[in-house]
Amino acid sequence: MKIAKTIAELKESRRQLQGSVGFVPTMGFLHEGHLSLVRQARAENASVIASIFVNPTQFGPNDDFSAYPRDTERDLALLKKESTDIVFMPEPPEMYPPNARSWVVVDGLTDGLEGGSRPGHFRGVTTIVTKLFNIVEPTRSYFGQKDVQQALVIQKMAQDLNMNLEVIICPTVRETDGLAMSSRNVYLVPEERQAALVLFQSLNLAQQLYSNGERSAERIRREMITLIEHEPRAEIDYVSIADTATLKELDKIGEKALVSLAVKVGKPRLLDNIVLGELI
Amino acid sequence: MKIAKTIAELKESRRQLQGSVGFVPTMGFLHEGHLSLVRQARAENASVIASIFVNPTQFGPNDDFSAYPRDTERDLALLKKESTDIVFMPEPPEMYPPNARSWVVVDGLTDGLEGGSRPGHFRGVTTIVTKLFNIVEPTRSYFGQKDVQQALVIQKMAQDLNMNLEVIICPTVRETDGLAMSSRNVYLVPEERQAALVLFQSLNLAQQLYSNGERSAERIRREMITLIEHEPRAEIDYVSIADTATLKELDKIGEKALVSLAVKVGKPRLLDNIVLGELI
Repeated sequence: MKIAKTIAELKESRRQLQGSVGFVPTMGFLHEGHLSLVRQARAENASVIASIFVNPTQFGPNDDFSAYPRDTERDLALLKKESTDIVFMPEPPEMYPPNARSWVVVDGLTDGLEGGSRPGHFRGVTTIVTKLFNIVEPTRSYFGQKDVQQALVIQKMAQDLNMNLEVIICPTVRETDGLAMSSRNVYLVPEERQAALVLFQSLNLAQQLYSNGERSAERIRREMITLIEHEPRAEIDYVSIADTATLKELDKIGEKALVSLAVKVGKPRLLDNIVLGELI
Repeated sequence: MKIAKTIAELKESRRQLQGSVGFVPTMGFLHEGHLSLVRQARAENASVIASIFVNPTQFGPNDDFSAYPRDTERDLALLKKESTDIVFMPEPPEMYPPNARSWVVVDGLTDGLEGGSRPGHFRGVTTIVTKLFNIVEPTRSYFGQKDVQQALVIQKMAQDLNMNLEVIICPTVRETDGLAMSSRNVYLVPEERQAALVLFQSLNLAQQLYSNGERSAERIRREMITLIEHEPRAEIDYVSIADTATLKELDKIGEKALVSLAVKVGKPRLLDNIVLGELI
């Protein structure tokens, strides 16, 4: 496994690969969710490149950039075990020279949900992902459904700007009790870890109501909120039932709907989602 | 010479090219300025691709999009004569499907000059050029110094976003009397054509003052304005003496400076520029 710390090193190693390349961009502190992406990339491509880069431009002033968990040694060992060919791990000045001033933005899709709660977040995401795509030149790139808005925004960006790769969204990986895997779960103290299950429980409730024929988004949303509010350690940021293409809130659920939520449990703000009706 | 009207056709023809590709994006109605770019692309690359696309997103509501001059048959004959390999000429819906919502923006560099006079103009330029770069995948792309801010913005964008090509700026081509070639010159009636020389004359004056040791940007600017105001058919939009890297207005000219101006002469708004001190 090669480790590239500069763009030039990455390009040099990339040049030596033949055939298709699967790319998994990460912010490190890897868990089974990331590794499932690496495995799918491994299965579908001749080579696999992963990146580890905690991207400063997607964190707001009140976000946890400097506190974001890091464990590079463990990450590299995990990636090696999955037969990753190249790991790209640049430092911030390599990706953002002092006078950098170009941005990629996706309108509309980024207004609500995470974009509503974290202004500027998606501009940072789409810009770093564009840069990484141009540097790595992958055939396919893999993103987890856990960060569903991010995945859909990147898919839209790649399509709108005619980027030469396929953006693939992979299923959320969960702990055995249902909690969606996230690097931020490490912040949860034991009682919060238990309380955090309320996200998955509320999604299950939505699924159940939908399966029983409920099609009013408002009624499902209200029942989810009631359930979450019974958990004193949970503080709702949003509970959304939205169109899967436009991410606009729905009144009535048609063929399918994206149910997503952000809930603060102790320090971390946790995300989860499911798609009602069919797989996304 | 192959003509591709769809992205799929372009990609199919592109795949058959071997070696380096020089790319010249145009809005058609070609003149010697464009052809000089094609010739340089021809000299420096194994193959040449040109595009003809009047890009709606870079025109404002008060701009001349629908009136922009077109003569495709003549353009194709000229490109063929220069041994162009492929011409890409898509229709607007091919480049902008109804739900397209992704943009590339370059901050700072686009605030003043053309960006100040034409809000949203550069967002349209950088977005279409990104799309064309992704579709054509050129080794080198060629832009004229006549639209100097555009060329510098595209160079900056390519660098910031790690695009895999070289952006080359080529000298302005002029009529024998000095008027910078432009597709919009066709709008000039004979008296306006004569009056339009005031742009080049004012740039020559700036060059002369600079050569005589003048380093006050304000004094040079004032003398240029006085000269232009003697021409009753000319209406100044801006006269700028700016830093060549940041495009911020200068008080005192150091090693070099970009002198650029936009002047309305009759219907068309004409642009021209020179770099004092050294070649850009």
